Amino acid sequence: MISILFLLASFFLLPITSHASVPDFCVADLNAAQTPSGYPCKNPKTVTVDDFVFSFLNNRGNPQKQFNVSISPAFVGQFPGTNGLGLSAARLEMDVGGAVPIHTHSGASEMIMVVSGHITAGFISNNNTVFVTKLSEGKVMIFPQGLLHFQVNTGEGKATAFVAFSSSDPGLQVLDLALFGNNLDSSLVGKTTLLNIAQIKQLKAVFGGTE
Amino acid sequence: MISILFLLASFFLLPITSHASVPDFCVADLNAAQTPSGYPCKNPKTVTVDDFVFSFLNNRGNPQKQFNVSISPAFVGQFPGTNGLGLSAARLEMDVGGAVPIHTHSGASEMIMVVSGHITAGFISNNNTVFVTKLSEGKVMIFPQGLLHFQVNTGEGKATAFVAFSSSDPGLQVLDLALFGNNLDSSLVGKTTLLNIAQIKQLKAVFGGTE
Amino acid sequence: MISILFLLASFFLLPITSHASVPDFCVADLNAAQTPSGYPCKNPKTVTVDDFVFSFLNNRGNPQKQFNVSISPAFVGQFPGTNGLGLSAARLEMDVGGAVPIHTHSGASEMIMVVSGHITAGFISNNNTVFVTKLSEGKVMIFPQGLLHFQVNTGEGKATAFVAFSSSDPGLQVLDLALFGNNLDSSLVGKTTLLNIAQIKQLKAVFGGTE
Amino acid sequence: MISILFLLASFFLLPITSHASVPDFCVADLNAAQTPSGYPCKNPKTVTVDDFVFSFLNNRGNPQKQFNVSISPAFVGQFPGTNGLGLSAARLEMDVGGAVPIHTHSGASEMIMVVSGHITAGFISNNNTVFVTKLSEGKVMIFPQGLLHFQVNTGEGKATAFVAFSSSDPGLQVLDLALFGNNLDSSLVGKTTLLNIAQIKQLKAVFGGTE
Amino acid sequence: MISILFLLASFFLLPITSHASVPDFCVADLNAAQTPSGYPCKNPKTVTVDDFVFSFLNNRGNPQKQFNVSISPAFVGQFPGTNGLGLSAARLEMDVGGAVPIHTHSGASEMIMVVSGHITAGFISNNNTVFVTKLSEGKVMIFPQGLLHFQVNTGEGKATAFVAFSSSDPGLQVLDLALFGNNLDSSLVGKTTLLNIAQIKQLKAVFGGTE
Amino acid sequence: MISILFLLASFFLLPITSHASVPDFCVADLNAAQTPSGYPCKNPKTVTVDDFVFSFLNNRGNPQKQFNVSISPAFVGQFPGTNGLGLSAARLEMDVGGAVPIHTHSGASEMIMVVSGHITAGFISNNNTVFVTKLSEGKVMIFPQGLLHFQVNTGEGKATAFVAFSSSDPGLQVLDLALFGNNLDSSLVGKTTLLNIAQIKQLKAVFGGTE
Repeated sequence: MISILFLLASFFLLPITSHASVPDFCVADLNAAQTPSGYPCKNPKTVTVDDFVFSFLNNRGNPQKQFNVSISPAFVGQFPGTNGLGLSAARLEMDVGGAVPIHTHSGASEMIMVVSGHITAGFISNNNTVFVTKLSEGKVMIFPQGLLHFQVNTGEGKATAFVAFSSSDPGLQVLDLALFGNNLDSSLVGKTTLLNIAQIKQLKAVFGGTE
Repeated sequence: MISILFLLASFFLLPITSHASVPDFCVADLNAAQTPSGYPCKNPKTVTVDDFVFSFLNNRGNPQKQFNVSISPAFVGQFPGTNGLGLSAARLEMDVGGAVPIHTHSGASEMIMVVSGHITAGFISNNNTVFVTKLSEGKVMIFPQGLLHFQVNTGEGKATAFVAFSSSDPGLQVLDLALFGNNLDSSLVGKTTLLNIAQIKQLKAVFGGTE
Repeated sequence: MISILFLLASFFLLPITSHASVPDFCVADLNAAQTPSGYPCKNPKTVTVDDFVFSFLNNRGNPQKQFNVSISPAFVGQFPGTNGLGLSAARLEMDVGGAVPIHTHSGASEMIMVVSGHITAGFISNNNTVFVTKLSEGKVMIFPQGLLHFQVNTGEGKATAFVAFSSSDPGLQVLDLALFGNNLDSSLVGKTTLLNIAQIKQLKAVFGGTE
Repeated sequence: MISILFLLASFFLLPITSHASVPDFCVADLNAAQTPSGYPCKNPKTVTVDDFVFSFLNNRGNPQKQFNVSISPAFVGQFPGTNGLGLSAARLEMDVGGAVPIHTHSGASEMIMVVSGHITAGFISNNNTVFVTKLSEGKVMIFPQGLLHFQVNTGEGKATAFVAFSSSDPGLQVLDLALFGNNLDSSLVGKTTLLNIAQIKQLKAVFGGTE
Repeated sequence: MISILFLLASFFLLPITSHASVPDFCVADLNAAQTPSGYPCKNPKTVTVDDFVFSFLNNRGNPQKQFNVSISPAFVGQFPGTNGLGLSAARLEMDVGGAVPIHTHSGASEMIMVVSGHITAGFISNNNTVFVTKLSEGKVMIFPQGLLHFQVNTGEGKATAFVAFSSSDPGLQVLDLALFGNNLDSSLVGKTTLLNIAQIKQLKAVFGGTE
Repeated sequence: MISILFLLASFFLLPITSHASVPDFCVADLNAAQTPSGYPCKNPKTVTVDDFVFSFLNNRGNPQKQFNVSISPAFVGQFPGTNGLGLSAARLEMDVGGAVPIHTHSGASEMIMVVSGHITAGFISNNNTVFVTKLSEGKVMIFPQGLLHFQVNTGEGKATAFVAFSSSDPGLQVLDLALFGNNLDSSLVGKTTLLNIAQIKQLKAVFGGTE
């Protein structure tokens, strides 16, 4: 009996071993040029379990304790194993009063999962309705793709959350940086937002914008 | 010879006639509930060529001549034949100094085709770079999905343009309306944009926002 | 100046108010028949922020404390706001020695984010390689779509994790239930797995299978 | 030991039983209106194995033995279990000299698998290159989506083939029927094909076209 | 206050600057091999606004004034900024009596927007129905993906139109060139279209076909 | 007349000849690194009809006659013309009593078309229902993506079948190899399947697994 089973086993092992192109995963080769579907795949023979694991503790993206907020992204650029799998992550640590400025992700919906603390979060829909609520531990909120949204720590202590995205590369457009953090002409900003020029120039000074 | 051909013809006519579900088109039944892929299809037997045609001249969406701008959308809600086909349109008429406020489309890339006049158009990328240029007749510009963009008539006469979108329902989020045209709390706006409260309240008054 | 701005505001408010079909979200109407793209959308006028929020604390899906494990799903069936957005969630609570049996999700990749404790997690690729590691707080692991994977609490205390999926309805096929929890003929199980009949019958007794 | 296992089993059985919306399949409800993603799903409780099985022997779509050809489609309209799964089928029986007229499928690529006989098959690419070859038993050929293609029995006996499509509803546009089998004005046909009017009128007579 | 704002600004500038892979756009590197999702992306650092702009006036693809027709494509090959964005364009200039021969686009739906003149346009559906109408300035018509369609200038003056496609690379198969502009054997053409051999040979002479 | 037609022909030939990037097909360059959407395309100038044809008779993947079963895959790795087209194939030859072990395809639905003989085939759904039936010549069965399924020759003679998949690279995970054909720790297998250790070690010996 065993010998028969062994032959059967070798039968299935053969084609699998020789079939190098099975796309069950495609760890990003970050040195290659991207395509519209993501990065080319790293050679599968060099892939290890570490390609599928990311540690937020070793990769505190932007700990700015003076602002009570730290955002650590685990997008494909930081976590190449997500390439092609339609998921990525971030970790949010907010001290009292911390805020994530209003922003959009052009390429993904977002889901926040609160680990601790109290976070007031919201988004604005296309028909201009505000969906805002206060989240506590164990609560999850979803923000549809491409819509303006924000999070503010409105609790009395620190807040921590995991964030998931429906793309390995969700994109991020922070409103203030888009308007005030570059060389976009102040008069164009004014004409297309109706913000007054003094306000524009003040925030350009804050965010490093020129003109 | 002819009789043989005739039999062949009837052979192919039969299955086609009986196969009612060919999805070469799916004109929207706007009275039915949408799905994530679009509207359910209108009964194909009631579809006519008019379902595939839209007239901007008969559907001037928003002619606001005092502002020198008129935007006429031909999204699936106005042009049900686009349902499921990954395209929709708009027509833009801008008098001197007219402007389309900064906005995003969460569900589509956009392409503007200038018919007449001079339009300064631009978008801001995720890495905060401004791509702006002045377009004239016969020029086309593309705005990637979900990014902030705008158009301003910077010519000395009227400007007209056709706009195409990569979805039958691209969505539209006008920045000013999202921030100032609803009941989003002014302190939340301030905290997540750093705009000063006076500016926020002034624009809330303009755009009908409360709180 | 203000009156001009006010007119501009009303210009943009008009089309948006009348355009009822913008698909920035599509909260599931769970009483309607699904389609291949998800559920039909609930009437947008009845949507509230609660449709976009889920509380794991109020929805402990399957707390089986005697097994040191509790899995709470927040798929579209429990969390209708995820419909069409390409994301869903689950929360995992594992006491010492707890295990999530080996399983697949046919419709989604999965990402686990460890909140506390130590979890040994792994998956098996198409070329039969095992990718297994021990995760602790702040670590994230991704499991590609459709592959067998598992999680075991190998720490000395309780483990808690959030899980995200790249679909609002990822599907779940637990190996033991598929093989032993139904009326699949024991001889077919044996012939297609090479498990011995005694083992099959023992587990059929455990998982409620017949024949 | 068994009692512990039994508890574990009931743990997993519970959520699965209550989770009615898992979209591992979506058998078409052909009486409901289609959507761009396919038909709404039949109630899963009424689905049986027969929904996933189609018999070409019981469904000889178009046996026209006088023309040595018979095409039996198993698209979603005939085989509702394919709905949403991205596959459908057809069976081809061709006697000596039989031919499938040149045609396109707007919604799917096609793959022919020859069971018996000799079939000359080909397609024309966008850059106007002809890819044509003679296929025999055990050979497979693929025809890219939307391109003109044809099959002719060029063997000395009957030919049989299975055909697979990359959509549950591939669509079918037979060139001769599109040009000559309807009320398309003969002068428009002539102007847009350069065929002479006599030829057009002859084939209109054959295929039942008018005008 | 300003210093605090400035710190916040630098917080968000950091991760964005270091995150080189955000796929908000992917301008085609036309020298690299295509993939099924499009071309690899040009190095984002070398992208300028000109990559997102195309001028039909500088790129008159095929001005054949003796035929009263000129078609200028702005597909990804001519307009690399469209890569991955699901849109491309063309401009059509037709003098009196000009015609666009019947053709298909295997990879995109098409939308024509008439700028001036009168164009009779139509398509044939899978169930062999003709949808044809006469379009004038400001009218838009949509042609579903993969179906045969045509445009004829039936006005008394010149006609101009913009065309948009739902893909950066829609493909183009002109019926006459596919049948008569290559080495496809005349007897195969006859057998699969029922056109008579004399007609086939006449058009082969016209379109440069052989055999 | 002819000269006019000839000019028209050259008009359309020009843009097509110069437009090298039409993606009507994308034959895989198997030497290049894969991307999430498939392989980069082979230079179109070197593509011949042989790239679109596969012969099962010349490529008997795994003829194991002593087990009465032979599976020949024609996935993108063997049949590069399928790249990007959403289809691939396999051929199954089963002698009396032959069986295809229970397995999943993470990336595709599967359709079996029985050429000769009797095959008992089945799959298990997410809600743990078994869909099993006996297929004979001319019958087709579909297995939804990612679900466990199997085929057994339960006839009295040889059985042959064609298989189609909804992806050029469907993936294959054979349950026994995933559990017993690698270095997955036996105690982890036991803990996550409840199989007893003796059974695990016996099958590890059969399938070449260690530990």
